[in-house]
Amino acid sequence: MTLTLNCDLGESFGSWVMGMDEAVMPHIDLANIACGFHAGDPLVMQRTLALAKQHCVRVGAHPGYDDLAGFGRRSMHCQPEEIIALMLYQISALEGMAKAQGISVDYVKPHGALYNDMMAKDEVRQAVLQAMAAHHNPPILIMQATPDADQHRCEAEAFGIRLWFEAFADRAYSDDGRLLARSKPGAVLDHRQMLVQAEQLAHQGRVTTASGNTLALQVDTLCVHGDNPQGVKAIQELRRIVQG
Amino acid sequence: MTLTLNCDLGESFGSWVMGMDEAVMPHIDLANIACGFHAGDPLVMQRTLALAKQHCVRVGAHPGYDDLAGFGRRSMHCQPEEIIALMLYQISALEGMAKAQGISVDYVKPHGALYNDMMAKDEVRQAVLQAMAAHHNPPILIMQATPDADQHRCEAEAFGIRLWFEAFADRAYSDDGRLLARSKPGAVLDHRQMLVQAEQLAHQGRVTTASGNTLALQVDTLCVHGDNPQGVKAIQELRRIVQG
Amino acid sequence: MTLTLNCDLGESFGSWVMGMDEAVMPHIDLANIACGFHAGDPLVMQRTLALAKQHCVRVGAHPGYDDLAGFGRRSMHCQPEEIIALMLYQISALEGMAKAQGISVDYVKPHGALYNDMMAKDEVRQAVLQAMAAHHNPPILIMQATPDADQHRCEAEAFGIRLWFEAFADRAYSDDGRLLARSKPGAVLDHRQMLVQAEQLAHQGRVTTASGNTLALQVDTLCVHGDNPQGVKAIQELRRIVQG
Amino acid sequence: MTLTLNCDLGESFGSWVMGMDEAVMPHIDLANIACGFHAGDPLVMQRTLALAKQHCVRVGAHPGYDDLAGFGRRSMHCQPEEIIALMLYQISALEGMAKAQGISVDYVKPHGALYNDMMAKDEVRQAVLQAMAAHHNPPILIMQATPDADQHRCEAEAFGIRLWFEAFADRAYSDDGRLLARSKPGAVLDHRQMLVQAEQLAHQGRVTTASGNTLALQVDTLCVHGDNPQGVKAIQELRRIVQG
Repeated sequence: MTLTLNCDLGESFGSWVMGMDEAVMPHIDLANIACGFHAGDPLVMQRTLALAKQHCVRVGAHPGYDDLAGFGRRSMHCQPEEIIALMLYQISALEGMAKAQGISVDYVKPHGALYNDMMAKDEVRQAVLQAMAAHHNPPILIMQATPDADQHRCEAEAFGIRLWFEAFADRAYSDDGRLLARSKPGAVLDHRQMLVQAEQLAHQGRVTTASGNTLALQVDTLCVHGDNPQGVKAIQELRRIVQG
Repeated sequence: MTLTLNCDLGESFGSWVMGMDEAVMPHIDLANIACGFHAGDPLVMQRTLALAKQHCVRVGAHPGYDDLAGFGRRSMHCQPEEIIALMLYQISALEGMAKAQGISVDYVKPHGALYNDMMAKDEVRQAVLQAMAAHHNPPILIMQATPDADQHRCEAEAFGIRLWFEAFADRAYSDDGRLLARSKPGAVLDHRQMLVQAEQLAHQGRVTTASGNTLALQVDTLCVHGDNPQGVKAIQELRRIVQG
Repeated sequence: MTLTLNCDLGESFGSWVMGMDEAVMPHIDLANIACGFHAGDPLVMQRTLALAKQHCVRVGAHPGYDDLAGFGRRSMHCQPEEIIALMLYQISALEGMAKAQGISVDYVKPHGALYNDMMAKDEVRQAVLQAMAAHHNPPILIMQATPDADQHRCEAEAFGIRLWFEAFADRAYSDDGRLLARSKPGAVLDHRQMLVQAEQLAHQGRVTTASGNTLALQVDTLCVHGDNPQGVKAIQELRRIVQG
Repeated sequence: MTLTLNCDLGESFGSWVMGMDEAVMPHIDLANIACGFHAGDPLVMQRTLALAKQHCVRVGAHPGYDDLAGFGRRSMHCQPEEIIALMLYQISALEGMAKAQGISVDYVKPHGALYNDMMAKDEVRQAVLQAMAAHHNPPILIMQATPDADQHRCEAEAFGIRLWFEAFADRAYSDDGRLLARSKPGAVLDHRQMLVQAEQLAHQGRVTTASGNTLALQVDTLCVHGDNPQGVKAIQELRRIVQG
């Protein structure tokens, strides 16, 4: 079984350009498309959908908190019903625009602080799952692969939701299976380490932690970044490794 | 054939309440639901959809310009592709949320300045029709009933779009079939005049203009307003007249 | 020494009306005016300033998090530099508009979640004080009167900032000097209890807690609410008590 | 008398970067700083002010329509009172933040569609002048140099407002003294033509129109663009020409 590569795309907004979507799209499997709350706008969404269609890349909704100025990276204390409504709204908006182009939205990956809150707080994860379950035809949900994966799968199954687990090739893991905080030395792997970790994740289903221990991680997809030419090149190398 | 009553609903936003949605909903046929650009938000949309479902009221999307501070009443010089994208986005967002509740979005009525621009400017009307046609399963479009109705129907048919024409019971018409500008004396009818005009529109398919002439108007639906207790009462009277 | 009454005003936005500003303004001493981030807009601010000027009410800036949909009531995890910048921006916007009408902005009271975070989190309070100190002519800052008042005054003095402490007449206090959580029974006082508590705060500098103990609270100003006719009437009664 | 160079800066927003502010600032005289409605945010404004201060560049407010998604480039049909309020708000916000850094806002240049509407529509220009006059200490206003300059100066004087007139070195002029529409061939000058036009404007107070005629234009400042390395290089050449 091979890993897919997923990448955040469609993050431009109005006159502001972000990311190298045209260079990245040919080399990924899953395009996480921003839905207008933390990034993206209707026109950007339409163009990003067309680009994904052209390269036969599967499309996922990438909903975030309603925080454009903060790029959805600031945790907001939302009520569960607010999270449910903002997720349904964003997923639906992208889905209708995708259907207009004859393609479907196959999965959902929450963005930034919403993703982190989903992983860290039970009540946010419950709200995310409720939002997914409220959908008339629930897509797959992407969560981070952690030692709690079995419990998360259980929780999702209770809502009838299928999960994909993702890992990060370029970030060091600590022994508890979480990412090492960016503030810690060695938190971001160098290029060589990243390729090694991708190889390990793809073919052995495990990762070597910052302290040198080995941790089993069942992973479906790798999160990759395409904001600069180095990132685009790395995506191509990662693809050869995980799908070679 | 009877006229339906359509009303703008779901125009609250965050902590701000607008309209008397709960009092109005039982007495109308079509709920034009704001989609978050000029009014409404995901939570308000969800609640308004639930209220419409409860009262078996048909739901329409009420998309507007991206202008919350101006309530979508300020004309904005948008490119056709911008209009297409913002309409598809808003219609889709409402539609997905409606599907989650097991109901459908049957029609679209542009809001405020977007509606006025659609009636006044060929390029905006073309963009609106393109947006409708881009939808995977185009809903009906509401336009204003004017002497240009045949031409508008023709234009819509070219895009495969079905139209409903609406009239206003509480506004005086000028001889050219347009609404008398609000700045003109007599532009807004009093209660008695409104009931007479509704009767005329519903049962004779015509209207008496401000200058006393008679004008034929083929009408499918009347636009009504429910912002205050008088409005809610008037809606009930209008319903007896047009559906009696 | 008498207590002043402060009230949140100018919370309408665009076409949405909130509060009974015209009825409230004649009966208060300090108008906390929203600055466009969580409520208010340039036109509303201008009108509220004119109303305050007409009634010789002192004006304060009421800055909030950048969260219109959540009315600034959702805590957002902002960096200190973000809090400093958003406070300076909002205070400055109101101040320039006030100067254009020949009046000054005399104090600042953070709104909603920003206020709560300021009281609860050291790093937010430091950022708020830094924002105040960065002002070319720092206004007074309103904080909640708690048993930590002396420490807060110390912190503020280090930044050269003068404080006013406020209390709430209509909310029960717990023994630690905090407000009893709204979810607790008896958290919101009835009308008679409110008048008694205002009397106690104004003339004895103390409050009887929910458990019946007595707590000393040095208070400069009472926060009052004018969203409905009962609130407006209560403000008039409170004024007689605290300034009688 | 030498011409100054003015440039739009501070147009980044949140996580989105626009412009090469650090490379441009050392080479210009006047920094038109976006104020958060069409571009910029409180943090970006603060940093741009600090950069201007560091390079002793004079600061102007660059207010725009409330249209982030459209970058203030879409004309919006605002009422005069709306324009007055949104200009005062934006100018004040920047001014207070500037004062916090010990610098002043010396002038105002409306942005994009607001600038174009000011030049094209009497009622918008009147509203802009009213906004300037409402300021407690009115800054200078930048308008485009056209054959109507005398009339515009007259209008401004009636409000007590001083004007600076600006010209564009890189755009062709038509015989009526307006810019040739971008859609017309030759509308945007090549590098050599731009330098010639700057020389002519700076030292002869005139411009050669697209049809070869000569037009007198009294100019105080040239508008320059620094979005790319070529632009930054051109600014340095232009400065030598107009201030050599």
